[in-house]
Amino acid sequence: MSNPVLVEVTRGALVESSHRGAIAVADADGNRVLATGDVTRPVFPRSAIKALQALLLVEEGAADRYGFGDEELALACASHSGEPAHVAGVERMLAAAGLNSSALRCGPHYPISQDAAAALARTGKPSALHNNCSGKHAGFLCAACAMGVDHADYWRSEHPVQRQVRAVIEDFIGAVLTQDTCAIDGCSVPTWAVPLEKLACGLAKFGTGHGLARPRAAAAARLREACANKPWFVGGTGRFCTDIMQLFGARAFVKTGAEGVYCAALPAQGLGIAIKCDDGAGRAAAAIMATMIARFLPLDAVERAALAPHLKPVLRNWNGFEVGAVRVADVI
Amino acid sequence: MSNPVLVEVTRGALVESSHRGAIAVADADGNRVLATGDVTRPVFPRSAIKALQALLLVEEGAADRYGFGDEELALACASHSGEPAHVAGVERMLAAAGLNSSALRCGPHYPISQDAAAALARTGKPSALHNNCSGKHAGFLCAACAMGVDHADYWRSEHPVQRQVRAVIEDFIGAVLTQDTCAIDGCSVPTWAVPLEKLACGLAKFGTGHGLARPRAAAAARLREACANKPWFVGGTGRFCTDIMQLFGARAFVKTGAEGVYCAALPAQGLGIAIKCDDGAGRAAAAIMATMIARFLPLDAVERAALAPHLKPVLRNWNGFEVGAVRVADVI
Repeated sequence: MSNPVLVEVTRGALVESSHRGAIAVADADGNRVLATGDVTRPVFPRSAIKALQALLLVEEGAADRYGFGDEELALACASHSGEPAHVAGVERMLAAAGLNSSALRCGPHYPISQDAAAALARTGKPSALHNNCSGKHAGFLCAACAMGVDHADYWRSEHPVQRQVRAVIEDFIGAVLTQDTCAIDGCSVPTWAVPLEKLACGLAKFGTGHGLARPRAAAAARLREACANKPWFVGGTGRFCTDIMQLFGARAFVKTGAEGVYCAALPAQGLGIAIKCDDGAGRAAAAIMATMIARFLPLDAVERAALAPHLKPVLRNWNGFEVGAVRVADVI
Repeated sequence: MSNPVLVEVTRGALVESSHRGAIAVADADGNRVLATGDVTRPVFPRSAIKALQALLLVEEGAADRYGFGDEELALACASHSGEPAHVAGVERMLAAAGLNSSALRCGPHYPISQDAAAALARTGKPSALHNNCSGKHAGFLCAACAMGVDHADYWRSEHPVQRQVRAVIEDFIGAVLTQDTCAIDGCSVPTWAVPLEKLACGLAKFGTGHGLARPRAAAAARLREACANKPWFVGGTGRFCTDIMQLFGARAFVKTGAEGVYCAALPAQGLGIAIKCDDGAGRAAAAIMATMIARFLPLDAVERAALAPHLKPVLRNWNGFEVGAVRVADVI
């Protein structure tokens, strides 16, 4: 079965490229609200479930012990752009647990933010702190410290931290994660492939607390609130996740993942959303997510106008000329 | 009709993403040698036909007048990485015609090369010289000067340079380019959509001279020779086009274009190759091109071994761990 074309990228009057994919929208009981394409095929959620990976930090008492506020908790859920305040926040998280950047095992890369990358090039080289996952890794390290376990191998699948993360994800998706669906993520922690429909259900649970034990529901609410209060720390300047959460606050939790994945929770609607573009295109996944938000979140005229540029992003060339657009297909 | 999956990107034991597309291989008479997917749909060749856009530079006598050697001619055909010698070469081309970078209208962007981008960030800001198309634009400017026309608007579709470029492309593809298939490229010059099968035929003509007027065939041979002699100037350090032409010299002319396009000419086989990935994925198009070269170019054991890493590129994460691979599907 082939997934439908969900997004077309135009240049002039023609379609230059197109993106296929699947979308699942579900409630916390697993009832399908929308299913486009194959929502049963396991897909790697990658960074789109960082908030689930961050629950341990709260549940194990590390967030309280180290006095973490919204910025630190948002960073633990983030794929940040490596801007100075992101890096400073991660350093603060590590320092609170008596650690420094040498404990991070996510690997170095230049900041996603071009301005931050250029500024860094002037003064130094990228370190693991600039990795977009460094907040998540700092969260793992702090959780390990609070759990009283050796933090050295916190990223390995057999480490207590990753074992518990796995159990948390299983709780949300209502299924057992097996080793044959496990791979290594860009930052070296395990990533397990999960059907989109189960991811959507898991996000609905994350957004509502429905079906979760009380402490876990409370931890989820705390992370959602942190991201809603400090959305810049979940992404960065000009990033889609940040823009959307700045627009809608606690009404929409949105998180990107590599290879064309997007997840969201709409708490008041009781819905979770999970998107995967077959080809891994982030530009397509973001436009689809904007379209899903426009469909399922009640918006006033001002909000609708603010969302419009994300529904059909204009493509500009190096001179700033409008050369085309990313448009979502009529099928969704 | 949907194009077949040509490339799968794996992570661990699973397919994480997949890429559909079409491939045309043809001779200079337009006979199909291989056609996978829809080879009749017009696609924007983008930078994959820069060598055709550069013919004017030779045909109008500019290359001789300004004393251009292989480096300058290769740069006119290039999507270069913005490394220092690329930038110096483009400056040399402009200076030969009494111009400087202020005449370029391709727009600025940071060098494709991360090392070059970091070095530039330390000392300045990107200019149009660093744009991967600056060699092509310098070629247009030099052609305009040699033609004795005002060079100011050399990038506009109604300028004599672009009118002649259009006529050259029409000669190669054996078809008229109409305004409804014209769009604006990333560097602001016109780009016309052309069916893959016609592009493949055009590349076969470029590789063999068959079907071209004698001066045009000679100009094509001179550009091919320049790229074969100086492949680093067509791309840069670690770039696919450069690697392939360093391996095979004059036996394979290979050129990438944006949005998942690749073109090639195999002169001795009399073949042209044109590839378009539906979703615009360059990683997939490169792996397909490597596969086409392995199929149609006679290789010895050493060459086959050297090509192998391009046939199934390994994916590594930020720590250098092998996490997956890009593999070409069995259908081709």
